[in-house]
Amino acid sequence: MLAVTILGNNSAIPAFDRHPTAQVITLDDHLFLIDCGEGTQTQMNKYKIRRSRINHIFISHLHGDHYFGLIGLITSMGLLGRIHDLHLYGPPPLIGIFNMQLQVADTQLPYKIIFHPLGDEGILVSDNRFQISCFQVFHRIECWGFIFRQIRPPRRVNAEKARIAGVPSSFFDRLKWGENYETQQGSIIENSSVTDPAPKAKSYAYSADTLFNPELAAKVSGVDMLYHETTYLKDLEERAVKRYHCTTIQAGTIAKYAGVKQLLIGHFSSKYDRLDDFEKETRDVFPNTDLAIEGVSYLVQ
Amino acid sequence: MLAVTILGNNSAIPAFDRHPTAQVITLDDHLFLIDCGEGTQTQMNKYKIRRSRINHIFISHLHGDHYFGLIGLITSMGLLGRIHDLHLYGPPPLIGIFNMQLQVADTQLPYKIIFHPLGDEGILVSDNRFQISCFQVFHRIECWGFIFRQIRPPRRVNAEKARIAGVPSSFFDRLKWGENYETQQGSIIENSSVTDPAPKAKSYAYSADTLFNPELAAKVSGVDMLYHETTYLKDLEERAVKRYHCTTIQAGTIAKYAGVKQLLIGHFSSKYDRLDDFEKETRDVFPNTDLAIEGVSYLVQ
Repeated sequence: MLAVTILGNNSAIPAFDRHPTAQVITLDDHLFLIDCGEGTQTQMNKYKIRRSRINHIFISHLHGDHYFGLIGLITSMGLLGRIHDLHLYGPPPLIGIFNMQLQVADTQLPYKIIFHPLGDEGILVSDNRFQISCFQVFHRIECWGFIFRQIRPPRRVNAEKARIAGVPSSFFDRLKWGENYETQQGSIIENSSVTDPAPKAKSYAYSADTLFNPELAAKVSGVDMLYHETTYLKDLEERAVKRYHCTTIQAGTIAKYAGVKQLLIGHFSSKYDRLDDFEKETRDVFPNTDLAIEGVSYLVQ
Repeated sequence: MLAVTILGNNSAIPAFDRHPTAQVITLDDHLFLIDCGEGTQTQMNKYKIRRSRINHIFISHLHGDHYFGLIGLITSMGLLGRIHDLHLYGPPPLIGIFNMQLQVADTQLPYKIIFHPLGDEGILVSDNRFQISCFQVFHRIECWGFIFRQIRPPRRVNAEKARIAGVPSSFFDRLKWGENYETQQGSIIENSSVTDPAPKAKSYAYSADTLFNPELAAKVSGVDMLYHETTYLKDLEERAVKRYHCTTIQAGTIAKYAGVKQLLIGHFSSKYDRLDDFEKETRDVFPNTDLAIEGVSYLVQ
C-alpha cells in the first residue's frame, strides 16, 4: 500500500485555514514525512498521525514554509520520550540551524538524529521492499524532490482461507511477505494457498517547489502518482516564472510529458481563497488530477 | 487602556487545542507581542490581531515553545509587504539563529529588524506615555520577564460635550492627550471642559518561565496585573522545582508577596486536559486569579 496524507497544502503564508507544506507517506508498514512547515505537529494531532512511527523525515529545501515546523516536531518528539533514531534528509545547512537551536535551549534530545545531507541525485533509503531516492528540481535555492517506490509489495492474505487452514492471525503479517506456515503437527501450509499475489508495485514522486522545466518530466517519468506544485492559476504564468513556481497548466504538462497515472496538485498561493479553478485548469491538460486537500489520504493506484 | 490578549497558554507541546506561549499587549494605541511559540501567526489570523500594528516583539528566552513561531511571523510580515521597522528584544543568540535562517533561504526582508539583545535589567522602551522594562527570572537558561507601565494614560473624551462645543471627531485623539481645540473663529475650547481626567496609570508584568523564588515578588511588586506561569498543579511541586517551573500555589504566593491586584495564570503542562483545578488551587492562595484562555483579552483594572 502506498498513500499520501496531506497535512499542509498552502505556500508561504498560512491562510484560509490552509497550512504550509507537509505530507505523510504510508508505504506498507512505514510512515515517512516530507517537509514540515510551521504547525505540522498540530496538524499531526488533528489528523491522528502517530509521530513515534515516523523514522525518516525528508526536507526539500530551506524556505520556511517547508521546514519551520521541524524543530518544534523534533523537540516535541524528545519531550514525549522518543528513544529510537530519527533519520533526517535535507540540504546541508539544515543541521547547523538545528544544532544552534538545541544548543541555546540547552536541550539534549533523548534520541539520536542521523542527518543525511542531500548532495547527489540517487537512492537515499533502500531495502528489499522499498526504495526512496531524491532528484534536484529547479527553484530559487537548492531544492529536492523525492520518489518513493515499492520494490516488493506485500501479498494479499486471504483471511478466510488462512483461518480454515489453521494459520493464526498473529502470523498473517509474515504471510504477507511470502512465508509458509508450519503447523504444530509439522505440516506446511504453502503461502500461495492462503494468499493472493501482490498487486503491482507502486511509485510516488514529490516534486517540491519548482520552475516549469520539461527536464523534470524525465526525472519522474512513469511514476504512478506525481505531486506537483501549482502555486498560481494559469493567468499568472509570468509571476510563476519570476518566483520559480508553476501554474496549473505547467503542472499538468509535466504530468503529461512524464506519463504518470495520477496527478496531485498543491502549494496554493495565499492569494486564492477558493481552489476550484486549480482543479479545473489542470484537468484541462491532465484529466486525472486531484487537489491536495488537508487531512485527506490519497491512495496511489 | 492596558490589556493582554492570550494567543497561547500551553507549555512545551501543543495539546488539547492549546498552543505554546504568545500574548499581545494593547497599551493605548500600541500593540506589543510577548513570546511567539509555533503557530502564533495562525493564532493571530484566528483572533484578528493585525500583524502590521506590531512594532515591538519581546522574547523571554530561547526554549522553543516561546519563539519557534517567530521566524515564520517575521518572514510572513515581509511577504505581506511590511516596510516599517520592527524592534526585536531577546537573548543575544536569537539574532544569529535568524540571520542563518534568512541566509539559507536567500531571503531579503523588505523591512528592517532592529535587534536589542537583552543584557541588563531596566528600561527597554520609553516615551512620555508608557515604559517597558525587563527583569531576569529564574529558569534553566537565561530568561526574562517584562513590565509594561502606562506613564500618562489618555484623558477620557466626553463625546457629547465635545460635539456640542463644536470639536470635530477627527480631533478627539488629540483631546485624549490634553490638547485644547481652537475653533475656526479662533476661540479656544479648553480640554478639561470636554474631557474627563485620565484613569490611574496601569501596569502589567509578564514573568515568563521561572522557578519559585520570592525575589521575583520584589521585581514585580505592586503591578496591577501579573501573568505568572503555573506549569503544574500543587501535587507536582518536586517536578516543578526540578524543571525550573512553578505550581499553582507558588504562583499565588508570588502574587500575594508582590501585592498585585490581579493574577493571570498560564503555561499549563500538556499533561493536563482540563484546567479547572489550576484556577481553584491558585484562588485558594490568591482569590483574584484568572486562567489565561486563548482568544480572551484581559483588561488590566
